[in-house]
Amino acid sequence: MSFIHKDFMLQNETAKHLYHDYAKDMPIYDYHCHLDPKLIRDNHHFDNITELWLGGDHYKWRAMRAQGIDEQFITGNAAPLEKFIKWAETLENAIGNPLYHWSQLELKMYFGIDELLTKENAEAIYHQANQYLKDNHVTTQSLIQQSNVKLICTTDGPLDHLEEHDAIKAQALSAAVLPAFRPDDAFNIQESSFKVFVESLEAITHQITTADAFIEALHKRIDYFHSKGSKLADHGIGELNYQTYSEEAIQAIFKKALNNESISHQEMGQFQTYLLFNLGKKYHELDWTMQIHFGAIRNNNTRQFKALGKDTGYDSINDQSNVAYHLNNILNMLATEDKLPKTILYNLNPIYNDIVTTTIANFQAPGVKSKVQHGAGWWFNDTKRGMLNQMASLSDQGMLMHFVGMLTDSRSFLSYSRHDYFRRILCTHIGQLVELGEVPNDDALLERMIKNICYNNAYNYFKLI
Amino acid sequence: MSFIHKDFMLQNETAKHLYHDYAKDMPIYDYHCHLDPKLIRDNHHFDNITELWLGGDHYKWRAMRAQGIDEQFITGNAAPLEKFIKWAETLENAIGNPLYHWSQLELKMYFGIDELLTKENAEAIYHQANQYLKDNHVTTQSLIQQSNVKLICTTDGPLDHLEEHDAIKAQALSAAVLPAFRPDDAFNIQESSFKVFVESLEAITHQITTADAFIEALHKRIDYFHSKGSKLADHGIGELNYQTYSEEAIQAIFKKALNNESISHQEMGQFQTYLLFNLGKKYHELDWTMQIHFGAIRNNNTRQFKALGKDTGYDSINDQSNVAYHLNNILNMLATEDKLPKTILYNLNPIYNDIVTTTIANFQAPGVKSKVQHGAGWWFNDTKRGMLNQMASLSDQGMLMHFVGMLTDSRSFLSYSRHDYFRRILCTHIGQLVELGEVPNDDALLERMIKNICYNNAYNYFKLI
Amino acid sequence: MSFIHKDFMLQNETAKHLYHDYAKDMPIYDYHCHLDPKLIRDNHHFDNITELWLGGDHYKWRAMRAQGIDEQFITGNAAPLEKFIKWAETLENAIGNPLYHWSQLELKMYFGIDELLTKENAEAIYHQANQYLKDNHVTTQSLIQQSNVKLICTTDGPLDHLEEHDAIKAQALSAAVLPAFRPDDAFNIQESSFKVFVESLEAITHQITTADAFIEALHKRIDYFHSKGSKLADHGIGELNYQTYSEEAIQAIFKKALNNESISHQEMGQFQTYLLFNLGKKYHELDWTMQIHFGAIRNNNTRQFKALGKDTGYDSINDQSNVAYHLNNILNMLATEDKLPKTILYNLNPIYNDIVTTTIANFQAPGVKSKVQHGAGWWFNDTKRGMLNQMASLSDQGMLMHFVGMLTDSRSFLSYSRHDYFRRILCTHIGQLVELGEVPNDDALLERMIKNICYNNAYNYFKLI
Repeated sequence: MSFIHKDFMLQNETAKHLYHDYAKDMPIYDYHCHLDPKLIRDNHHFDNITELWLGGDHYKWRAMRAQGIDEQFITGNAAPLEKFIKWAETLENAIGNPLYHWSQLELKMYFGIDELLTKENAEAIYHQANQYLKDNHVTTQSLIQQSNVKLICTTDGPLDHLEEHDAIKAQALSAAVLPAFRPDDAFNIQESSFKVFVESLEAITHQITTADAFIEALHKRIDYFHSKGSKLADHGIGELNYQTYSEEAIQAIFKKALNNESISHQEMGQFQTYLLFNLGKKYHELDWTMQIHFGAIRNNNTRQFKALGKDTGYDSINDQSNVAYHLNNILNMLATEDKLPKTILYNLNPIYNDIVTTTIANFQAPGVKSKVQHGAGWWFNDTKRGMLNQMASLSDQGMLMHFVGMLTDSRSFLSYSRHDYFRRILCTHIGQLVELGEVPNDDALLERMIKNICYNNAYNYFKLI
Repeated sequence: MSFIHKDFMLQNETAKHLYHDYAKDMPIYDYHCHLDPKLIRDNHHFDNITELWLGGDHYKWRAMRAQGIDEQFITGNAAPLEKFIKWAETLENAIGNPLYHWSQLELKMYFGIDELLTKENAEAIYHQANQYLKDNHVTTQSLIQQSNVKLICTTDGPLDHLEEHDAIKAQALSAAVLPAFRPDDAFNIQESSFKVFVESLEAITHQITTADAFIEALHKRIDYFHSKGSKLADHGIGELNYQTYSEEAIQAIFKKALNNESISHQEMGQFQTYLLFNLGKKYHELDWTMQIHFGAIRNNNTRQFKALGKDTGYDSINDQSNVAYHLNNILNMLATEDKLPKTILYNLNPIYNDIVTTTIANFQAPGVKSKVQHGAGWWFNDTKRGMLNQMASLSDQGMLMHFVGMLTDSRSFLSYSRHDYFRRILCTHIGQLVELGEVPNDDALLERMIKNICYNNAYNYFKLI
Repeated sequence: MSFIHKDFMLQNETAKHLYHDYAKDMPIYDYHCHLDPKLIRDNHHFDNITELWLGGDHYKWRAMRAQGIDEQFITGNAAPLEKFIKWAETLENAIGNPLYHWSQLELKMYFGIDELLTKENAEAIYHQANQYLKDNHVTTQSLIQQSNVKLICTTDGPLDHLEEHDAIKAQALSAAVLPAFRPDDAFNIQESSFKVFVESLEAITHQITTADAFIEALHKRIDYFHSKGSKLADHGIGELNYQTYSEEAIQAIFKKALNNESISHQEMGQFQTYLLFNLGKKYHELDWTMQIHFGAIRNNNTRQFKALGKDTGYDSINDQSNVAYHLNNILNMLATEDKLPKTILYNLNPIYNDIVTTTIANFQAPGVKSKVQHGAGWWFNDTKRGMLNQMASLSDQGMLMHFVGMLTDSRSFLSYSRHDYFRRILCTHIGQLVELGEVPNDDALLERMIKNICYNNAYNYFKLI
């Protein structure tokens, strides 16, 4: 039996039933990813597994560095085959790491390869995989179709014109491809790039000399995204920093930022709070969903940051004080005015799971099933352990039944396998509870739960298609 | 087989033996709850399951909100049957949440109902349950007797006259019902209600113009509680804030508070520290037990707080800095003077379990088995996961054998089922260790451990009956 | 079957194979312990189990205090037999605590005793054990040889002359015994003992009036240790406190310290940062390994500290803010100059596991397999739960295959049993993953992994023998 087989990760009999009969064939609703819409529009053909697998995948890069591989084989100029062999050497040593499962799942699902990749068979598999890509003319769109994806939300900045999305729409793919609004640039008021961002925003909206005008311009962009079918925003926040503020203080901070004057930690918090409040109200008005990803500390290796730039595998899980205070206050300022949109919180540090799940419970509201959600295990938590911890906390403190479930959060077109991985783990988890007698063995109930979490909840919650 | 059956949650053979032969028939020693002594005194008869089940139960309310139920069916004016149906709709979706187990256990134990509650059968079960209440003339005292409760400690403020406790004593119930001293009002020096509290205390003790006189008045009330059989105090502390102080500083802070002047964070800490020190010494003198519950952040939804008030389901787990520092110093200030009373620490945030269990070990003392205790999983941790985490940490860092075990901490007369739930989980946990060969299969040892944790430890530790 | 048997803690069939065929016979590479080199040099003979078992073992002392034993039987003047009986009474109640396993393992491995120790059989076992020590002439060196130890690194201060190590080398034991450099005294700038330390250092190096001269003196001592075969340093840091600094600031802080002036929290951080930077560069130059143990809060019981001194069982797990920030910056300052030595991080608070494992991944480097390591579960985490949590986090975020594995960190010559305990748990863990189908059942791969983690990784990483 090959390592990846039909019952991979299905670790009890109930799990096998739930997965094969209910989970497996549900479509994929990938409401948050980082796929490049250009590659979708162009129906980009992949002819090399190194490009498809190793290009841009900082998870793999980190593992290769932990293997002691020289950077030239990771992000450097080594030939694709050489890189692939170094990756194979890494992978065979990575047992226990989720990359081992992801990679073997991807080889199986997208290249039809059953073998365990090792340094020894790497060259042969490299050629076999490339041949497969050629023979099957594997493209971005073929991967999306093969994966039974019904929806993709990309991640786009406020300045984006979204012309790729228009072009994709015209092609009538098997999946809807919609933009999602990610205004991180608007939050980074302390960075030198902020002024440039404001000027660029000005160029496509109106003159921006005040914070009010800045908000108004962002609202225009939200309206623009809305006109393209988007109903989803995302915010990456390193440290939660809720601060009360006066309108005068905000105007002064905004001016300081435009003058490149230094901004204090408290002022950054005030501006962050002000932005979240004013964006949140807009999302609420348009019935959008607001995502908040918090708790990453980024670019920690200065030498490598200078050499390779950001998003190259030098980020960690962060910790901070008073998470519960900040989180509750951020949601409360919107709830107080009855303007809290549907909201999903993703914490990178899993020690905050129980804070998040006991906080979302404070802000649920009539008419939406679990209006405030705890997002699926994010990034470093996109592991069996991370998924189980997230579901355990959500189950204890909320309603797993209404969980909107998995997303890829990925740059790779092969990451749809992560939905499959998630579903297998979900079915094993629920199956075990059934077999322990902790959940009733009521098949209709279980079918509803599994299908809800795999697809139906997201479909009903986001209302994007 | 019904979902709740005799071996519910007993997940190995040893567990079944331990539960049925040792745990099940031990009486209940409920040393911390929030039952209303008036209802006990009056032997209140319940005629409606909605009143008994949904009135005041903010756990259930949170689940209903996460289900998207309108507030009128939760805390509002909807009819009891309507509320019950909405609750049933919530419950059938709450699989995985401890409420599912608690509710089905309570239906079985206190209404003889085996069926799983659903929206469909809700009306029938509503009538069946109400008929049961009537036919069996279910009252507060009948529930206590049925549950084999030997002791109940209620939660009472320093101003309480405890006349209900006198009346109950005169009735010679099957269970002793004793007051416990909860002087939270004395700690909330920054609140406008503090002055009113001091004046009310003055009215039943003596003139209070200094902090010393305040302490003396509280000591009088402790003596009064002591005269009523109480030997237990409890303190709810949102944020631990140990601060060194001078006597002069304390007097100045106390004056500020009486003048409604603003009190700094440091001053609050100083006053909190001063109070704990002076109350702790008194508890030590009288051989009381001091409980500290820390780490809740409350009333986070302002809109709902204004509408519904406190304790309505808008609280979360809190986090703070330097928990180990504060906790050790609080215990140390009393231990330094050899005045540390028996103490139980309950942390709401489970990430502090290992801090608590490695801290209590610093302050154990001769003559009492585990004089400083880690309390059973509190509130959001009153779940299988929470219980197992608490026991795992206590086992690793201390002596599970001497653990004083479960308490209901509840407002409901049906919550004695939680003792049963705890015992089942305890037996499964110990049984598994036995079957894995991690604990000797020595039946006398196991019997002692199970009976200790179910009842005997609490009996010997608190010395209340 | 006795409680400790050949398959103790081997909880699946694969585990039994992995342990008996691959793990059991690997030698021990004990790269971090607190054994007294004098006792090794003198080949000290033990004639009393109380001395060998209870002397200096604050783990056992804490358990005895939690049992309510009077201090005279713990650290006081009671007779050895009396102490032993009190310990036995404690142990039989300590089921669930790792001490139970450690103690029974040690009785079996080093005294040939199968029985479970209880108060009842304590006296008989006491005499039996002592007879065994006599009959077998048990000594420090016999225990080392019996345990198949190939390397021991002791823990030594910068002032140590290491003459015991010279004498041991001349004896050509079965194990290499090397010093390790632990300059904690150099970090404790705020303590009154700092000046004395500097003067003593001066006496064996050169005049020290500046921080530069201080660093130079420490470098000389590192060179001295290096000449004795040491290639390992260790640093115990209560609170991580990275602070940027100027050279002027450091010189001023150093002068303050020598003048016994008070040092601020920020200044302590600056000096700590400066020292780690300058020591780290030296370690890098000599290809040493730098260990950092962080997060203990010590001597929390003032009364007992005054009576018994430090390291007597009054320490806890600490928490602090911004662990990820401090940790990343400390490593980054060295990595920025390409001077980061091989580094092992040990966190006492297990809630930081995922921060540590996602931080070490930022600083891996070519040519060494996992150059920056997450150390095995330290102190309060030296438990089944602690080990599994550490390995789970490392597996998810890094390469378990390259983990340097277990160390005793102990003052006792019987603690080599902890390597055995670790190996059993490791084999059960890996075996379970295999049986769940999460790790390939590839025997060569598994053999490599087990042997790597038991011995080979440490051998190749530290390059000490």
